[in-house]
Order: sequence, then structure tokens, then C-alpha cells
Amino acid sequence: MIRTHDAGSLRATDAGTTVTLAGWVARRRDHGGVIFVDLRDGSGVVQVVLREEDAHALRNEYCVKVVGEVTRRPEGNENPELPTGEIEVTAAELEVLSEAAPLPLPVDDQVVAGDDVRLKYRYLDLRRGGPARAMRLRSRANQLARTVLHERDFLEIETPTLTRSTPEGARDFLVPVRLQPGSWYALPQSPQLFKQLLMVGGMERYYQIARCYRDEDFRADRQPEFTQLDIEMSFVTEDDVIDLGEAIVAALWSELADHEIPRPIPRITWHDAMARYGSDKPDLRYGVELTELTDYLRGTAFRVFAGAIDAGGYVGAVVMPGGASQTRKELDGWQDWAKARGAKGLAYVVLDAETGEARGPVAKNLSAEHLAGLADAVGAKPGDAIFFAASGETREAQELLGAARIEIARRAGLVDESAWAFCWVVDAPMFEKTDEGGWTAVHHPFTSPNSEWVDRFEEAPDRALAYAYDIVCNGNEIGGGSIRIHRRDVQQRVFDLLGISPEEAQDKFGFLLEAFSYGPPPHGGIAFGWDRVCMLLAGADSIREVIAFPKTRGGFDPLTGAPTPITAQQRTEAGIDAKPKPQQPPSHAGTAGPAAPVSDPT
Amino acid sequence: MIRTHDAGSLRATDAGTTVTLAGWVARRRDHGGVIFVDLRDGSGVVQVVLREEDAHALRNEYCVKVVGEVTRRPEGNENPELPTGEIEVTAAELEVLSEAAPLPLPVDDQVVAGDDVRLKYRYLDLRRGGPARAMRLRSRANQLARTVLHERDFLEIETPTLTRSTPEGARDFLVPVRLQPGSWYALPQSPQLFKQLLMVGGMERYYQIARCYRDEDFRADRQPEFTQLDIEMSFVTEDDVIDLGEAIVAALWSELADHEIPRPIPRITWHDAMARYGSDKPDLRYGVELTELTDYLRGTAFRVFAGAIDAGGYVGAVVMPGGASQTRKELDGWQDWAKARGAKGLAYVVLDAETGEARGPVAKNLSAEHLAGLADAVGAKPGDAIFFAASGETREAQELLGAARIEIARRAGLVDESAWAFCWVVDAPMFEKTDEGGWTAVHHPFTSPNSEWVDRFEEAPDRALAYAYDIVCNGNEIGGGSIRIHRRDVQQRVFDLLGISPEEAQDKFGFLLEAFSYGPPPHGGIAFGWDRVCMLLAGADSIREVIAFPKTRGGFDPLTGAPTPITAQQRTEAGIDAKPKPQQPPSHAGTAGPAAPVSDPT
Repeated sequence: MIRTHDAGSLRATDAGTTVTLAGWVARRRDHGGVIFVDLRDGSGVVQVVLREEDAHALRNEYCVKVVGEVTRRPEGNENPELPTGEIEVTAAELEVLSEAAPLPLPVDDQVVAGDDVRLKYRYLDLRRGGPARAMRLRSRANQLARTVLHERDFLEIETPTLTRSTPEGARDFLVPVRLQPGSWYALPQSPQLFKQLLMVGGMERYYQIARCYRDEDFRADRQPEFTQLDIEMSFVTEDDVIDLGEAIVAALWSELADHEIPRPIPRITWHDAMARYGSDKPDLRYGVELTELTDYLRGTAFRVFAGAIDAGGYVGAVVMPGGASQTRKELDGWQDWAKARGAKGLAYVVLDAETGEARGPVAKNLSAEHLAGLADAVGAKPGDAIFFAASGETREAQELLGAARIEIARRAGLVDESAWAFCWVVDAPMFEKTDEGGWTAVHHPFTSPNSEWVDRFEEAPDRALAYAYDIVCNGNEIGGGSIRIHRRDVQQRVFDLLGISPEEAQDKFGFLLEAFSYGPPPHGGIAFGWDRVCMLLAGADSIREVIAFPKTRGGFDPLTGAPTPITAQQRTEAGIDAKPKPQQPPSHAGTAGPAAPVSDPT
Repeated sequence: MIRTHDAGSLRATDAGTTVTLAGWVARRRDHGGVIFVDLRDGSGVVQVVLREEDAHALRNEYCVKVVGEVTRRPEGNENPELPTGEIEVTAAELEVLSEAAPLPLPVDDQVVAGDDVRLKYRYLDLRRGGPARAMRLRSRANQLARTVLHERDFLEIETPTLTRSTPEGARDFLVPVRLQPGSWYALPQSPQLFKQLLMVGGMERYYQIARCYRDEDFRADRQPEFTQLDIEMSFVTEDDVIDLGEAIVAALWSELADHEIPRPIPRITWHDAMARYGSDKPDLRYGVELTELTDYLRGTAFRVFAGAIDAGGYVGAVVMPGGASQTRKELDGWQDWAKARGAKGLAYVVLDAETGEARGPVAKNLSAEHLAGLADAVGAKPGDAIFFAASGETREAQELLGAARIEIARRAGLVDESAWAFCWVVDAPMFEKTDEGGWTAVHHPFTSPNSEWVDRFEEAPDRALAYAYDIVCNGNEIGGGSIRIHRRDVQQRVFDLLGISPEEAQDKFGFLLEAFSYGPPPHGGIAFGWDRVCMLLAGADSIREVIAFPKTRGGFDPLTGAPTPITAQQRTEAGIDAKPKPQQPPSHAGTAGPAAPVSDPT
């Protein structure tokens, strides 16, 4: 090593020691003939005292080597905020290892630069305290999760990333194959099919911190490549997978967020989550629960509500504590907010803070009787606002109220930013209606119905429940999975209900179904959205903060300039324009278009 | 868990316990009214005794659940070869969890199926002992390496795989970008550039078990995607990287091959390796060293040798102990062998076992004096054969002898298959001549000249040495790396020598060079070819044995059928046929064609 000591490790007990340090000039202060430099390396910062004649050329972010003696700082000059604050290093030798041009991005924890500049000069950004800590945290998170898994005899197994286009939810990224012109690999949206094949292969306990790819329109916090902690187990029940998932998050939060997660983590059914929070990933850091008013308002003359009720739908409400004090403009703002979400608006009444009298657009439309009991029905007090949603589609109305709930908590300051609230959302529905009147799998067609429904899901597909579970932290889905079907008869009945013909099944999932004909074990798994887990642990507000070299929204990398045009020669060589030779497709080959999702949804 | 016990864990001390097991029917034997089943799970095998009426339908690889009592086997029926051989489980209940169709591939360690069948039914293949052990070994190897690295404060950091086409040795795999039609990502041939950027970013100690991609013509043991253990460190010398590399292989071999590697691992210079073994990855399990005869044979009339000597080249020999006893056909076989390697032939003489007299095609062409001293010059005894190579290009002749050396060891049975021989090959040359008379970098243009040459490599580029090192095990290069250039002046001089103009450098490496203008630390690293490391540890003869789902030579996956044709709609959607919009390229953008290699060569 070029250095003998880490800068950040020096203490008063090192006084008198001659040390060689190497790192970066974090700051320099000139004091007439003497220059003080904060020398930074991976371990921290130490103050170095240099003679002006040696150090006059030093600028920020020069990389330097210093030989000097550790000395106690003069009394009164200690810096108690710095671990090395009792000492300084008096330099005898200085070597500039490399110079730094004027910085396009200050290496300073106080200065907030724009994301584009930060990403273009990510190597300077990473020298800052926060980004460096995020990288260290993520590395440690990997290590902690692996420890939990290895203690439980899991095998880390790598699965292919140049593979077959799989029928998942999103589009595949494609890769032309030079040696088989006209044929393409796809990058996997998840290792889902391979991890199930590993279970058929008797591996029993698999995990992988796996790179996954989804060619989606880049929404707020999506990256074209992302990472999941992917897990699959054989001979397990839902409880086993949930126990393991809890062990992992408990280890992570204990070590990295100094928070002991109370266990067992509460479980809430999917239907309860929708009914109480209007979300399948409820933020439980605050209450503000939804109230269903369908029965209460039955018979109302208000057409918006009556229409939803008559259609067999739902009317409900959520209360904003103190919401009556909002200005007209603020209340109008809720209408804009609702419209931005695609709703027609957000009906409300406010309860007079003094009298409790209901006012506002909806009040005029409700009967005196309905108005009189309303506050009790929804648990509102004078001074509160009550927001309503009504729809023939229950879920649509619940989700609007669920979004309003989040917004209420935000605007009313009800979110304890230091709190951690975890829950499992279990008993998810197996199926949902398609627009064409058929059924589609909510998770994927290999998800197992639970024991209550496995023999009779056809009787009421809309009510049939799956062994499918998501883990939610502060309103973020951080992982999800399911127990898979391993019985051929059940699988066939699910395909029948979904209207998947044997030919289509063969075409889409042929190789997996074939594998399932050779003694597949009962199995299930979970996948954690690793970027999001690390983001939460780091207290960051974007997954980009925990990715070393993230891309911007358009999938652009400001640092390398990727993606780039390619040359005509590259096109030709890669076989991009080749027509595939007509060939006998293998029995399990098929089209590669997107279809029903089959990955653990994270 | 569906089971209470692991089948392979049961012992005589468990006798009397009622257990629930779950696993696969490995074998059944009918004994009139009673059926014995070997039940296999991830932990091993146990014998289960079933009543015929319960078990008559069981076939191999059915997945079953058994409840029963552990009982000692009747005296004389113990199986000492089985850890569970003292007991059996008398089944009270049997549940078939899933059935198995007739097997296309027997799940049997004794039966060797063809690779295509094994890969198509890899999930059955993985149920066999050997393949399952290989997966477990690889998982454990990852864990051991990570332990060494975490103990030394390395950070595990993921780098992008959808990135910019980089100028490495092989072709890039390309990925069309739907959101920027006409632009393409490339899959990385290694994380080389990103790991150097992480060093510029002050991360100091990075590692990653990284997926890499090379679009090569598939030679014997290549996969289009492969894995390397990728490492980079700041403020280090070559010795530091070598120490770390030794710590990793020592931990792996100690734990997984029950072999303590003597340390320090011997170092041999690249030039010595070529001179003594005709290879930059010498197999040191045996001797059979090369002897240079250029001086000895100077003045010979034999034109083949004289031509090489006059051209400033090389004549050398390697001895095959006992090789004189080869038949004419065997000796002719060497000519075919040499021609298959692209050589004209392989000159030889044999020394009569009785008289020591030299015979054979070359003997006739050498002077009596040269013949008389030959055996001493090359260290041959009566009964040996001496093979010669001569060329104006020293390396060409040495490599032919090096290959002959390996073949000699194989044919003469000199390879101790149970031995492990490691070495570091250090002091690799910086440059080699191009066909056009210029210079090209042997490693990559960021490799640092060593201290002896850093200030004067221009004086003798062909002799200049780099801080570049490879680690070799039994003749396999299992890792390699270098110290990188961090001084701008040195980098500029290297570019000048390579004839890389500033524009070209900007075009090819712009973003890295820009990063290097902001105080880059001295740094270096290494990358281990992880598939090959695991292959050696597993005692396998192909990296495919340690990959869960490998591809065949053409890059084809017999299991999934990948790659596949894509639809016209996919082409259109993915923007494959789009012409890129003319755009202002970022200052560091450039072409994406292959150029000099810049990755740690593994």
C-alpha cells in the first residue's frame, strides 16, 4: 500500500507516530506560511499542516501522498465534531499523485447539484459523503442478506441473462445473435422461470442478487436495468417464505437503520388493505382509514353516489383531520389533484369547526338524515373535511380514496418520517376480469390458489384467493412472491379458466410445463426490489441514489453517453437485418411477445 | 416446511422418531409385499419401507411425502456406504406430491448422457450427484471469496450492463433502445471502465461477481455470457493486488479442494515463462522445460534452423522422455498435430535407447559436432525424443514448443492429475508490434509500465515491461490484472507511442480520460475468470459443468430454445430499424467499434 495509515483512523494515541497518508485535498485554508489541508480518504478526514512553499499549488481534489508526524492539536484547536479532531499531521513530505482540473461539481456535502451534472460526473459525486455512504450501505445490505440466506442453507446460483423472450408484463430488451442471424436473445425481466426450473432440479433453496431488465416507459423511479434479491424454496408453505422474508428485513433494518422490526410483521389481507387503506401497499405510519358508505348512503338521491350503488359498486370516504380550515383554493386544488389522477374530481364536505355543520358541494345533495349521521359514520369531528369517492368499480373508488389518504397525511403533516411501518399483504385475488369479459391472472398463471379455493376457484373466480404475498414498508412494496402450482390438474384448471389453450400454453410456457411433468416439488418464493430496499435503508428519495451509475429517465447515461448509434458494419456483423432461416422450431419454441406477467412483482 | 427432517440427516440416534420426509424416488426395489424406496432430497438419501399396496404406482422421480418411523435396519442389512445406512424409515403414510413421466434422462450418477440431452433436461441433470455438487461448490466459492474481500473492507458495487459500446478485444452484444430509436446499448465485456471510474470516485476497494458478455466465435469452452470476480483497489502496488489474489485462491483451495497452497505463490516473469515453458500460462505440474539452441546451433548448415537464426529469431527444443520408443506412426502423428496448430511440422531426432545415437529427419541435417553435444545441450538421455522449433519470430517457435510440451506430458503420462501448481506470470510486455509496423498494447492502453520502464519505454517498446500479472493454475489462466496509469503525462506518452491521436483517444476513451483529469488515485486490480476457477475446483473438464444453465457451442440453449426469431411487431416496437436522429453527440461520444482490449484478460 502506498499509505501506512487510513486518514480517518488517526487518534490522539497515534501522536508521535510518523505516517504516510494518501487521499484527496478536501479543503485548504491558508494561514500565512502554513496551509491546513483536510485530507480525505475512504476512511474519513484528517487535518494536515503543510508549509506554504510545499503546498501553494494544491487545489481541491488533488490526489496527494503525505508523510508526516501525528501531533496533538494545540489546546483549543480541537474539533470535537471530527473523529480525528484531537490531532493533526505535520507534513514532512508532500507528493502530488495527480492533479485536478477545476471542478464541474463541487465535492461538498452541503452543495446540491442537479442530477444531470451529478450523473455526468458521478465519479466526483461519489466522493461526497452521502453518495459514498449509500454505496457502502448497499454493499453491507448484500452481505447481511446473504448471511441470513447462507445460515439457512440457501445456494447462490446464477441464471442466464441471454435467454428466451418470456411472456412477462413488460417488453423485453432484445439482443441480436450474430452466429444465428435473425435470432435474438432477450434479457430476462426476472429469473422467475429459471428459479422454478432449479426447484424442479432439486436445488431446494436458491437465491441470487439478480440483474433484471424491463423495457418500460421510464416512469419516475424506474431504471431499464434493476436488481432483485431473488429467492425460491421447495417443500415450503407461505409461512416459511414469509418467515424468511422477515428474517432478511429484520437483519437489514436492525443493522443499517438501527431499528428492530417487531415480529411477526402484521399481515393484512389484500381485501382488507383495499377496504381500509385503498391500496395494496398501505402506508401504516398513520391512520386515516377509509370508510365504506355504500350501505349508509343506499337510497340517496345524489346521482353520483346512487349510480355507483345501483351498479353494485362502492361509495366511501376518507377524513382529513382539520381539513375544514382549508381555503377555497386549497379545496379546489384537490379537484385538480384528482383530475391529474384521472378521476372526475373529489367530492367533499367540510364540517364547520364550531357547529359541525356540513358544507360544501356534496352537502347540498345529501338528505338531512344522511348529513346528520355522516360525521359519526366516517369518524369525523367538527373542523374536519370528508372526501368521497364513488364508482361502479369498487377498486377504482378505493384507490382514489387511498391516494387521497396519502395526500391527506402529507398535507396534514401526519407522516412520522422517522417511523418504519411494515406489513405483509396476503390473500391476494387469483383472477381479475378482462375488458373482454374473461379472466386474467393477477400475479401469474403459476400462482397457487390457497387451500380454501384450490378445489373450487371456478365457482367464483373474482373471489378466489392466492397464496400470494407482498411485503410493504412505509407504503412501498419492497418484495413479493407466491407459492406456485405444482399439481398438473390444478394448473390445467387455471389454464382453462384463463382461456389458455393447450397449444397456447405449450407455445408460451412449453419448457416449464415439460419440466413440471417430471416430479416438480411444491415450491414458492419471493423477490425483493433490491434498489428500493436499499433506497429506504439509505433514507434516499430515489433508487438512483443507491445505484453506482444510474441512468436518467430516458434511459440515457450522461457519463458514458450510452446508448449510441451503431455503424452499418456493426449492424451487418450482428445480423440485425438478417431474415431468420425458416427452421423446424423445437417443440417448446414459440412467439416472444409480451403476455401475462410471470415474475414476482416487485 | 412440508417435511420435519432432511432425509440425509437421519442416523441411528433418530430411531423411534416419527418423521415427515419429502423428496424424490431415487430407486425402488420390490420385495414381495414390501417396497424399498431410496428417498432423495437435497441432504442425501434414506431408505423408506412401504407396503406394496400403497406404493405400487411409484416410479422413479415421483415427488413424494412420507410420514413414518425411523427404525434400525435389521442386523446385516446396514449399508456402511450411506450416511443413513444404519436406519430406514417405515412409512405409515405416503402422499404423491407430483408424478413423473418416463424420464428422457436417467437421474443416475453412473449414466453418462450426451450434453444436448443433459442441457435440454438440465432440471433432471441437476438432480444427479455431480451436477448438484457443482452448484453447491460454486455457491460456496462465492461465499469464501466474499469473506476474504469483506474482511479487507472491500465494497461490493454493481456496475451497469446496459452501457456504451466499449473498445475491447471482442465484439459487443448490442441492445436496441426503443425509447431512443436508432441508438443501442452494448452489454459490457467487463466492468473495466466502470471499476476505474469507481476508483476515481474514491471507492478505493471494489469487487463484484460480474456478468460479462463477449460476442465471440464460440470456441471450445466459451460462453457468450460468463462471470468474473472483478476487483479494483486504490493506492496499491502490484504486490498488494497479488497478496489479495493469493488470499482468495488460498481460501478457495483450502476449503473446496482440501489443498493448502504454499505461499507466496511463485512468480515467474513473462519472458521466463515463454523461454522455459513456451507459454504465458505454464502448467507447472511437470517439468519438460524448453531449451533455447539459437547460440548452440549458430552456424548450422540446416536451412530451417539457419534461416531462423539469421533472421534474429529462435531455435529451441523440448525433450520427450522415452520418446524414442514411439512408432513411426506415432512420430508422424506429431507432424499432423503440429500442422493442426498451423505449424509446418515438428522437427525431431530420437536418441537410440542403447547407443544414444541420434536418428530421424533432423539428424541428417546437423553436423556431427552439433549432434554430439545435442543430448547434453537439451538434457536428453538415450531413449528420449527431441522436438525442435525454429522461427524468425521467437514467440511463434516458443509457443509451438510450449504446446508440444503439454502434449508430451499428456502422452508420456507426466501429469499428476491430483496436483495443484500455481504461479504468477509477471512483468508482461507493454507493447507488441503490429503487422503495420506500429505498436499495440498487449494488455490495454491504461496498463502502467513498471518503474524501470515508466520514464523510458519509448527507447525500446518491445522490451518495456508492464505492471501486469496473471495467475495460472495447472496451465489455466484463472485471473489477470494490472496496475493502471494514473499520470496524465505517462498516459499521453503511451498514446503517442501507440499512435493514438488526441481526437481518437477522446473518441474512444473520452469519458475515462475526462475522469482522469480530476485527481485519479494510483490504482490497479485483477479479475478472476470465475467459471474457470469453479471448474478447476469442481474437478470438471468444462465450464459448462459449473454453470446452472449453460449454452451449447453455437450459443443455443436447448432448454428454452433461445435465441428465437422475433416478430415484425417486436422489430418495429424496439426501434431496430430506426435511423438515429442526427444529434449533437456529447463531447465524449464516439464510435462503438472494437479496438484494443481494455479489460483484465481472463
